[in-house]
Amino acid sequence: MLDKIAEILLELRKKQPLVHHITNYVTVNDCANMTLAIGASPVMADDIGEVEEMVSFASSLVINMGTLNGRTIESMLVAGKKARERGIPIIFDPVGVGATTLRTATAKRIIEEVGPTVIRGNMSEIKILAGLGGEIKGVDSVAGEEDRVEVARELSQRLSCVVAITGKQDVVVQGNRICRIDNGRPVLSRVTGTGCMATSLIGCFCGVTTDCFVGTVAGIVTMGLAGEMAEGSLQTGESVGAFRVGLFDRVAEMTPAILKQGGKVYED
Amino acid sequence: MLDKIAEILLELRKKQPLVHHITNYVTVNDCANMTLAIGASPVMADDIGEVEEMVSFASSLVINMGTLNGRTIESMLVAGKKARERGIPIIFDPVGVGATTLRTATAKRIIEEVGPTVIRGNMSEIKILAGLGGEIKGVDSVAGEEDRVEVARELSQRLSCVVAITGKQDVVVQGNRICRIDNGRPVLSRVTGTGCMATSLIGCFCGVTTDCFVGTVAGIVTMGLAGEMAEGSLQTGESVGAFRVGLFDRVAEMTPAILKQGGKVYED
Amino acid sequence: MLDKIAEILLELRKKQPLVHHITNYVTVNDCANMTLAIGASPVMADDIGEVEEMVSFASSLVINMGTLNGRTIESMLVAGKKARERGIPIIFDPVGVGATTLRTATAKRIIEEVGPTVIRGNMSEIKILAGLGGEIKGVDSVAGEEDRVEVARELSQRLSCVVAITGKQDVVVQGNRICRIDNGRPVLSRVTGTGCMATSLIGCFCGVTTDCFVGTVAGIVTMGLAGEMAEGSLQTGESVGAFRVGLFDRVAEMTPAILKQGGKVYED
Repeated sequence: MLDKIAEILLELRKKQPLVHHITNYVTVNDCANMTLAIGASPVMADDIGEVEEMVSFASSLVINMGTLNGRTIESMLVAGKKARERGIPIIFDPVGVGATTLRTATAKRIIEEVGPTVIRGNMSEIKILAGLGGEIKGVDSVAGEEDRVEVARELSQRLSCVVAITGKQDVVVQGNRICRIDNGRPVLSRVTGTGCMATSLIGCFCGVTTDCFVGTVAGIVTMGLAGEMAEGSLQTGESVGAFRVGLFDRVAEMTPAILKQGGKVYED
Repeated sequence: MLDKIAEILLELRKKQPLVHHITNYVTVNDCANMTLAIGASPVMADDIGEVEEMVSFASSLVINMGTLNGRTIESMLVAGKKARERGIPIIFDPVGVGATTLRTATAKRIIEEVGPTVIRGNMSEIKILAGLGGEIKGVDSVAGEEDRVEVARELSQRLSCVVAITGKQDVVVQGNRICRIDNGRPVLSRVTGTGCMATSLIGCFCGVTTDCFVGTVAGIVTMGLAGEMAEGSLQTGESVGAFRVGLFDRVAEMTPAILKQGGKVYED
Repeated sequence: MLDKIAEILLELRKKQPLVHHITNYVTVNDCANMTLAIGASPVMADDIGEVEEMVSFASSLVINMGTLNGRTIESMLVAGKKARERGIPIIFDPVGVGATTLRTATAKRIIEEVGPTVIRGNMSEIKILAGLGGEIKGVDSVAGEEDRVEVARELSQRLSCVVAITGKQDVVVQGNRICRIDNGRPVLSRVTGTGCMATSLIGCFCGVTTDCFVGTVAGIVTMGLAGEMAEGSLQTGESVGAFRVGLFDRVAEMTPAILKQGGKVYED
């Protein structure tokens, strides 16, 4: 798996795929800089009058509903359908699904009307999506490792897409393929948007590979490993501010060799 | 006062209050990261279709009108009324009030229809708000220290809320309670959003205390002290860029002991 | 030329011009911080209900269409006309023109209905604008240095404005005045928004000079020189993240002496 990821990284840096984002205004700058750091090209455009055209020359589409509103929801759907029609990967980050009726309804529409290629969320977000299908029993009470895989697998199989749950340990599932990733550090959750940035990295990798299962693992392991290295480089007195700067440094300087040496990826 | 602030900081870190922001797109990322740095949880949501629900499980609401528009003004009012109904603190940052008719009219609506718990602004913003009531004489000509307290006190008493004026010396007033804060450095005004971030910190502290006068002082002293320490840590050649990174480091590493030792807080 | 630029920098720091931006939500924070770093005052406001008033006390207006939408396009036009009426410089950054019909149509409207004082873009954006007039032959096939000057000159003469093309070597043209700038480093293109920030710096300099040709060169040389110095200060292991922080440090610490010593400006 790490060998494949290393190859995709080289491919990414050669092809510099254009990754179209319709995303939130909180972390949009970080997502653009992370996309550039790994070697891809970001474009952020959300007006309904241009998203179809913009998607038409993108290599992948990231839909992040962090600060959704009536105007951008329609743009997400239109852009998503166009991406689907073109067959480019659609990476969906259902930020805060379950928190409000609007978010849950929007996620449902994106799943049903667009059909994402990859869905990345935290455990509570993915549980909500799994529950939407009404087929998961006792979702709210589960918490263990095996349950996490089970939730991801059921959602993946029902929607025929890659499902990634990020957290202390990350899990990526596509049908019967399962991968666990043990990179990352708790400090990542003390910086806003590290989840969004991981989603953007997945968009970058999936922009140059037809195997979005591997592309998703690649994005998550890159973020986690960059987090470990950035934390390791902190000097006395430095904290979340310097860590955040280091994240971009480490992603920009990521190499196949570093990935192969530091990636903690376990396929079942 | 510093003892109380130190206690609230511990409480904040234990409870990790959810602070709902309806804020501007210029400094929203900084506000989210500052909220995380102090130990609280940010959520940014501004669609009228979800703000009431989002407010319903927040510990406090920050309304910042930095880049207000027709759509978000309505969301601010709806969210504010819900927050009022629930009795959670509403922190209002009237960015640029007085600069345009729209800003002045919006601030007036928020004050009248919502009723903020805390208002934080610079001297010229608070003067405008004080003048809206038509009860301050010669507001435009005042400049001295005593006048500043007087302006804050009149506004506080008229609106029955906490009023904070930040600047070279900060003043926080609630009715007859007055507190002056002498932390901070001029360089804070060379980074965009330090006022917005102070407002967010107030939202964090007020999310875990029923005494919003103390919560407001806590937010301001934290920001000022972090500014002093971040400036003190700059190395040769470093300037506003490194200072800004250091601000987040220092807020994340703030402790009750640092606050008690470095806070310059004077109650009248 | 460098002597004039040095003088304008001193003037800028003395007058602290207010630079009104209607810009994108990706890099807006960077533009505000860059405006502060050089010594000017940023204001970001885009609601149609207030942009005319805000423009009325600004020293210059920056229109950046990076994340344009139906609502903000109208605000750009209204603000632009007001700025034109007042005779303050209008700096237009036609981000992504040519990529979508909406962007091309919007740029056309801004050019025809507003009439910018300065247009700054990369080669492909300026070529598109030049082509809109239907007077450039074989635009798509040109690539060389002389062609770049030719494209800029034709556009400048047709629109009677300053035209700047930034890239490996930058070119600024106003009628028959031509200036080439050799500062900058490739790493600038690995950080999002360095083009937007250059446009903001142009807005700052043009806010205190009647010679917008010199003001435009000043903004570009400041950005390029800051990029060189920031790259030169990187330590082992540091990359785009630290570079970005350094950019703000270097602009904030820019002096007439540094500009005169490091600026590589060639007038034809």
